[in-house]
Amino acid sequence: MTATVLVLNGPNLNLLGTREPEIYGSDTLETIEAACQKRAKGLGLAVEFRQTNNEGELVDWVQEARTDYQALIVNAGAYTHTSVALLDALLATNIPIIEVHISNIHQRDEFRQQSYVSKAAEGMICGLGGIGYELALEALAHRLGTIKEA
Amino acid sequence: MTATVLVLNGPNLNLLGTREPEIYGSDTLETIEAACQKRAKGLGLAVEFRQTNNEGELVDWVQEARTDYQALIVNAGAYTHTSVALLDALLATNIPIIEVHISNIHQRDEFRQQSYVSKAAEGMICGLGGIGYELALEALAHRLGTIKEA
Amino acid sequence: MTATVLVLNGPNLNLLGTREPEIYGSDTLETIEAACQKRAKGLGLAVEFRQTNNEGELVDWVQEARTDYQALIVNAGAYTHTSVALLDALLATNIPIIEVHISNIHQRDEFRQQSYVSKAAEGMICGLGGIGYELALEALAHRLGTIKEA
Amino acid sequence: MTATVLVLNGPNLNLLGTREPEIYGSDTLETIEAACQKRAKGLGLAVEFRQTNNEGELVDWVQEARTDYQALIVNAGAYTHTSVALLDALLATNIPIIEVHISNIHQRDEFRQQSYVSKAAEGMICGLGGIGYELALEALAHRLGTIKEA
Amino acid sequence: MTATVLVLNGPNLNLLGTREPEIYGSDTLETIEAACQKRAKGLGLAVEFRQTNNEGELVDWVQEARTDYQALIVNAGAYTHTSVALLDALLATNIPIIEVHISNIHQRDEFRQQSYVSKAAEGMICGLGGIGYELALEALAHRLGTIKEA
Amino acid sequence: MTATVLVLNGPNLNLLGTREPEIYGSDTLETIEAACQKRAKGLGLAVEFRQTNNEGELVDWVQEARTDYQALIVNAGAYTHTSVALLDALLATNIPIIEVHISNIHQRDEFRQQSYVSKAAEGMICGLGGIGYELALEALAHRLGTIKEA
Amino acid sequence: MTATVLVLNGPNLNLLGTREPEIYGSDTLETIEAACQKRAKGLGLAVEFRQTNNEGELVDWVQEARTDYQALIVNAGAYTHTSVALLDALLATNIPIIEVHISNIHQRDEFRQQSYVSKAAEGMICGLGGIGYELALEALAHRLGTIKEA
Amino acid sequence: MTATVLVLNGPNLNLLGTREPEIYGSDTLETIEAACQKRAKGLGLAVEFRQTNNEGELVDWVQEARTDYQALIVNAGAYTHTSVALLDALLATNIPIIEVHISNIHQRDEFRQQSYVSKAAEGMICGLGGIGYELALEALAHRLGTIKEA
Amino acid sequence: MTATVLVLNGPNLNLLGTREPEIYGSDTLETIEAACQKRAKGLGLAVEFRQTNNEGELVDWVQEARTDYQALIVNAGAYTHTSVALLDALLATNIPIIEVHISNIHQRDEFRQQSYVSKAAEGMICGLGGIGYELALEALAHRLGTIKEA
Amino acid sequence: MTATVLVLNGPNLNLLGTREPEIYGSDTLETIEAACQKRAKGLGLAVEFRQTNNEGELVDWVQEARTDYQALIVNAGAYTHTSVALLDALLATNIPIIEVHISNIHQRDEFRQQSYVSKAAEGMICGLGGIGYELALEALAHRLGTIKEA
Amino acid sequence: MTATVLVLNGPNLNLLGTREPEIYGSDTLETIEAACQKRAKGLGLAVEFRQTNNEGELVDWVQEARTDYQALIVNAGAYTHTSVALLDALLATNIPIIEVHISNIHQRDEFRQQSYVSKAAEGMICGLGGIGYELALEALAHRLGTIKEA
Amino acid sequence: MTATVLVLNGPNLNLLGTREPEIYGSDTLETIEAACQKRAKGLGLAVEFRQTNNEGELVDWVQEARTDYQALIVNAGAYTHTSVALLDALLATNIPIIEVHISNIHQRDEFRQQSYVSKAAEGMICGLGGIGYELALEALAHRLGTIKEA
Repeated sequence: MTATVLVLNGPNLNLLGTREPEIYGSDTLETIEAACQKRAKGLGLAVEFRQTNNEGELVDWVQEARTDYQALIVNAGAYTHTSVALLDALLATNIPIIEVHISNIHQRDEFRQQSYVSKAAEGMICGLGGIGYELALEALAHRLGTIKEA
Repeated sequence: MTATVLVLNGPNLNLLGTREPEIYGSDTLETIEAACQKRAKGLGLAVEFRQTNNEGELVDWVQEARTDYQALIVNAGAYTHTSVALLDALLATNIPIIEVHISNIHQRDEFRQQSYVSKAAEGMICGLGGIGYELALEALAHRLGTIKEA
Repeated sequence: MTATVLVLNGPNLNLLGTREPEIYGSDTLETIEAACQKRAKGLGLAVEFRQTNNEGELVDWVQEARTDYQALIVNAGAYTHTSVALLDALLATNIPIIEVHISNIHQRDEFRQQSYVSKAAEGMICGLGGIGYELALEALAHRLGTIKEA
Repeated sequence: MTATVLVLNGPNLNLLGTREPEIYGSDTLETIEAACQKRAKGLGLAVEFRQTNNEGELVDWVQEARTDYQALIVNAGAYTHTSVALLDALLATNIPIIEVHISNIHQRDEFRQQSYVSKAAEGMICGLGGIGYELALEALAHRLGTIKEA
Repeated sequence: MTATVLVLNGPNLNLLGTREPEIYGSDTLETIEAACQKRAKGLGLAVEFRQTNNEGELVDWVQEARTDYQALIVNAGAYTHTSVALLDALLATNIPIIEVHISNIHQRDEFRQQSYVSKAAEGMICGLGGIGYELALEALAHRLGTIKEA
Repeated sequence: MTATVLVLNGPNLNLLGTREPEIYGSDTLETIEAACQKRAKGLGLAVEFRQTNNEGELVDWVQEARTDYQALIVNAGAYTHTSVALLDALLATNIPIIEVHISNIHQRDEFRQQSYVSKAAEGMICGLGGIGYELALEALAHRLGTIKEA
Repeated sequence: MTATVLVLNGPNLNLLGTREPEIYGSDTLETIEAACQKRAKGLGLAVEFRQTNNEGELVDWVQEARTDYQALIVNAGAYTHTSVALLDALLATNIPIIEVHISNIHQRDEFRQQSYVSKAAEGMICGLGGIGYELALEALAHRLGTIKEA
Repeated sequence: MTATVLVLNGPNLNLLGTREPEIYGSDTLETIEAACQKRAKGLGLAVEFRQTNNEGELVDWVQEARTDYQALIVNAGAYTHTSVALLDALLATNIPIIEVHISNIHQRDEFRQQSYVSKAAEGMICGLGGIGYELALEALAHRLGTIKEA
Repeated sequence: MTATVLVLNGPNLNLLGTREPEIYGSDTLETIEAACQKRAKGLGLAVEFRQTNNEGELVDWVQEARTDYQALIVNAGAYTHTSVALLDALLATNIPIIEVHISNIHQRDEFRQQSYVSKAAEGMICGLGGIGYELALEALAHRLGTIKEA
Repeated sequence: MTATVLVLNGPNLNLLGTREPEIYGSDTLETIEAACQKRAKGLGLAVEFRQTNNEGELVDWVQEARTDYQALIVNAGAYTHTSVALLDALLATNIPIIEVHISNIHQRDEFRQQSYVSKAAEGMICGLGGIGYELALEALAHRLGTIKEA
Repeated sequence: MTATVLVLNGPNLNLLGTREPEIYGSDTLETIEAACQKRAKGLGLAVEFRQTNNEGELVDWVQEARTDYQALIVNAGAYTHTSVALLDALLATNIPIIEVHISNIHQRDEFRQQSYVSKAAEGMICGLGGIGYELALEALAHRLGTIKEA
Repeated sequence: MTATVLVLNGPNLNLLGTREPEIYGSDTLETIEAACQKRAKGLGLAVEFRQTNNEGELVDWVQEARTDYQALIVNAGAYTHTSVALLDALLATNIPIIEVHISNIHQRDEFRQQSYVSKAAEGMICGLGGIGYELALEALAHRLGTIKEA
């Protein structure tokens, strides 16, 4: 049976590729999703991508993932740094979670260096651009056992 | 005339009973609402329960309470700790407000020990589980004069 | 068998009703005790009230409660914010503890917003005036099983 | 061609004139909008006013302004102090932004003295009441060149 | 009768136009004064401009304004961030005060983000360049009633 | 009628004159009391001196002063820096209070520079040695009107 | 031989009696000086009063006192909290220094609770109004031996 | 001549052996005293054990030790972290002081990691259980010269 | 030509697999190196693994990498949090650097949440166990262009 | 069988006896080792002393102790306060560890009051000079059962 | 052509040699100036020395240096730590600036360890006494090219 | 007899001239050493230069300097900010120490603005590039009396 990974993207990530490209690169969210869909197949996974600017909707989606998905990749954008509500929703799930950021948050404003998502996620990949999502998929495939360790 | 108390519940409280029961207990929000409805009758009060994961919707509801309800019980979940918008809405009401929390927030993460709601509420009941809502109702009944002090 | 709740009151609570009534209201400690005695009967509980201005005596009483009482209600007044000795005594008991404050400590001086008692108590009721003691009694009755949940 | 300024108002600003008038004055948002519409004409500008209690909707509107408006006036209310998501959206625009507040935020609670909007806005006008919006319009007219400096 | 606004400028503002123009723009203090004189006439106000590098002289001038002027515009330059003496002088006046800064102080060094002047001024205009002085004049005209609201 | 000033001395002040004389000088508490008794007569005051090492007893004495004395001089020793209970008792009195310290607490350990007593006292005299008590008496005589201003 | 005490008053103290009388009382600096002159005679002291709004002038005067006066009373007003230059000048003198404040600085804004003058003065008298200056004179008379201890 | 060591135990140490044994072990204070009495003999020392829950009594006992005992061992329990009064009493003695704690306070709550006793004691032994008292005795025997160094 | 990636491991990583396996898992550094060697071949890379407990040796190796290697993977263990010397060496290289941690450092002691390496590295992978090294290799392969993006 | 205790000494402890003797006393490390060797025999223990100025070497030695020694005494000198690498090595051992310091670190510079070693050691002995090592040996003998409790 | 270096000395430096000689040494400002004049000749420089206790005058002189001098040596005394106005004036110059202090400010009170001058100066020489001025002259001579590097 | 100055250089200073030349300039350590050797001769001094990346080796060398050299110049690179071990070694010497930095550390990252070396050094020269070493030599020559003051 195929496991499905829900990939959640937070506020302003719909602007990826056009917004501050010197920080976030020129890949769009669509390009990244396409690369993930391709990679997922080889890993025995299905992938579903979503984006919202609304904190409450992110919380709703995480609650949905508790019962309907097998793993989560979360790039919560700015809510990473401010949303305890998102943290609570993540803590209420029992599925594996990996946090992804396009840029290296440890090199940015001090208020961007703290992550509530990190308190609930197994691991973090940041600063590697769009490919970070693909690497997270591979890590989840190992974690879910859909591929064997090399 | 019957006074109506609006009981607002914030993010993830719809998961009550299933999420981290060692912290939040096994009562669901439905069980709590039922107990409150029963208790309210004896206190000369009507009760209306709502829950949302969305900060803006909580603000809308508090604004609605300014004119259409006689008192508020607020368990804002994670927004307790982060929402100045909710605080402003509460400050704009003139009706009595009691803050309720299922768990004792003073024993949890440091960021959960600070409450914006407390700056606007008359009092707080926390750590007593679902029965805290009922006790808040009784306190409001005294406050609104729908029952006489024993 | 009747369970007995020991209700401990800390420094200056003997002045209740005469001291800063705009903060603490006009109920005296005697009034509150009388209301609690009445309420306790309906809840299947006995109640004993004490007050002291002396930190060491509070510690002595809590140690006494470990073996001779079934539950504690603690309004430690100013020692709430400064007494690690009291906290240690409370941590050494295995009976249920509820913390009560007449005023909402979260709205007062910053040094009054921190409570050592909260680190040992199951829950807190504050800002509801003298009725907070009665509500604490009801919560303890549920906790001790002397009444059935409504 | 007429440049259009989008004026965004955050949570609880719909209550302006009725809420805490000793802080916020008695002008309603409608009164302010009317004065701005009138002033804008003399400045060669069009104006569009919006208000929402929802952080995500504010972010959506700022994203819309990137391409469809020539300037932004932002009174983000309480989100001023908490919304990194709003800051990110503002940083992603290239149009001039002026931050407005009815009250002087530097004289209020410490948590109201910090502004995420300020990190993206060219300037701030605060504490001058509803007329602050009009003055912001004039500053934008100079900035956009729709009027000549006197 | 014409009301007179005293416009006080603190240290280094005599260098305006030549010092760090990427921060402070190319307007000189003379240019700004000329624009203000012109604008003041239309607003029914008289204007007097002064500049000093000396904290004590600023204090003297503010004391003079208590009795001899009808309003104050204060751009205290660096003394904004360090002078409690200036704050005390401003608190001792009963006339309206508006604080002006050429640059947006909220985007600069942390020690430039705190303002003692703000504790005494009704409002602040910053980051709008020299035109900020003119806008402050208009706000004062409304405040003093020398013009009618549009 | 003679007004009586209660002079309260906290922990370790019974050692005055023998303990760390380079900080506290060589006057004993008895010497100071004798000088005060003499001075009081000329000021139309009676004086009563007490000393205790016990925080709770200090609180008891302050409560007693509420009704039975006309003014308080308080040198609370180490409880100055730690006793919120003492502060609460002082806040509950309506009589004039002056805080006295033998040494200049502003030049000592950081934890000795903060005073809870100062939050309730009208004024403080410190660093002047035993004569500080006498000066406090004179200030109280003016305050109570037992002598006329020179 | 008569010892002379130099009494230095800092910024805005020339407004005493007219500025914020609810904080600073209604005595003017002239009234206080007159009372001091009268008291000084009985104490075997001469007194010279000065006031300036200028930090540098205060420093000059303290330097002058090193060689030409026998003691200093310093009420540095707002420079109390900000002037390291004044502290350095005081540290360079070997004559006794007493710090005086009209109001109790420990009950005011946090930035008014720290005093650089305290690091150099033997003692402080605050919160007792104008009479504080007189009491400081008496303490200096004892210190300089111009009167004998009573 | 035999030197006598006074061993002072603070609040809740009377519960040793029954209270939180996973932290404090199962030795009672009586067991520890017995072992110390035995050890003391071999070291040429006498030992006297006391325990109190009262801060003021601890201060009294330390004052007594100044003149009547040759050394102090102090386990002040919770007052370790909060009692400046105890510190002052200890500073007023000239006899050697060793601080003992049953548990390693450096691994516990942050507020338990700070010790006022340490500011007056020559050394500290902690985390070694009841045997820490015996080791402190031996160190004092060396310090007082009742035994020769091995 | 094959690019060579130098993989540097800091203190205690030689204990991997035997030390605190509930935090660090059961993979040894040898197992991880073997997996990396295998993966590297498919990516067109060579890999060299080193480990040391010595901060200075880590600095030497990074200096060596400046000229002799094409990329760096750094798991500096505890030196991550304390070594500015390592940071300086990394800043002096111009080759791509990825930081790897076995555990999620954002969920550990506060002093482990700060990383000096992050100030110089392009990105971080943490909390994914040994596979994090492999994913870092793939990211470097993309970065160095030894494989084409899928 | 004899258990062997490894005694590790960090940087500058080779200077003991010559360096700042007013802080560290006049015992050399050789004297202390000799006393320990003698004491160890009576306790059924063997002892091995080492000293290094190199943090990495300390880490190597602790790793060696994991398998080859039965207990550790650690006086890490300045690395006590800075070395997370040493802490990690200590955490990776399962043998008893006692921390020793010649001086009372709680009375020294603030940066010397924090100890990473304390997070891994069972207990600490400090401020007792060289005899602290001997007392640690005795505590370990009890802990390892090579002697019976007296 | 000879370049001229303006040497500015802040408050209390006129007391050099007489004030706290254990900190500041026994050289007077005149001695230092004489040595500098002599040294300057050999370096192809002219030197002008000034001293003031007035912050505003320091600002005036720095503004003068912008156009009339080729380099600045600044020992701002206490204004080093408090004067943002001085910093702004220095930032407005384009000539080389070297900061000099007689004592090592890094070893003094915490408030003396922070320097606003350092934010504008190329370098700092401190703790070397009066000779620091001469060394600064030599550094400026290299910087201005009036002598060739040896 | 010729005095010898040991010049110690910490981590990464071997890269001087090639690493971040916009911060550190283009001089290599060899160039600086050559200039120092030349200058030393004229000053009656000998000079020995060393560099290491290893903290422990720096400590060893400082210990060596205690007995075998007459003065120290220390540029500890990154260990300046982190090494208490180095500080302890410096404190254990009785010879004059001058701290040198190529760049102005007061203008760099906050963690680079704190120096442990400064707590032991007589003075600091920073921000003047390689010539700072030469100026330190001259200061030491004065200090050691190998040249006479000009």
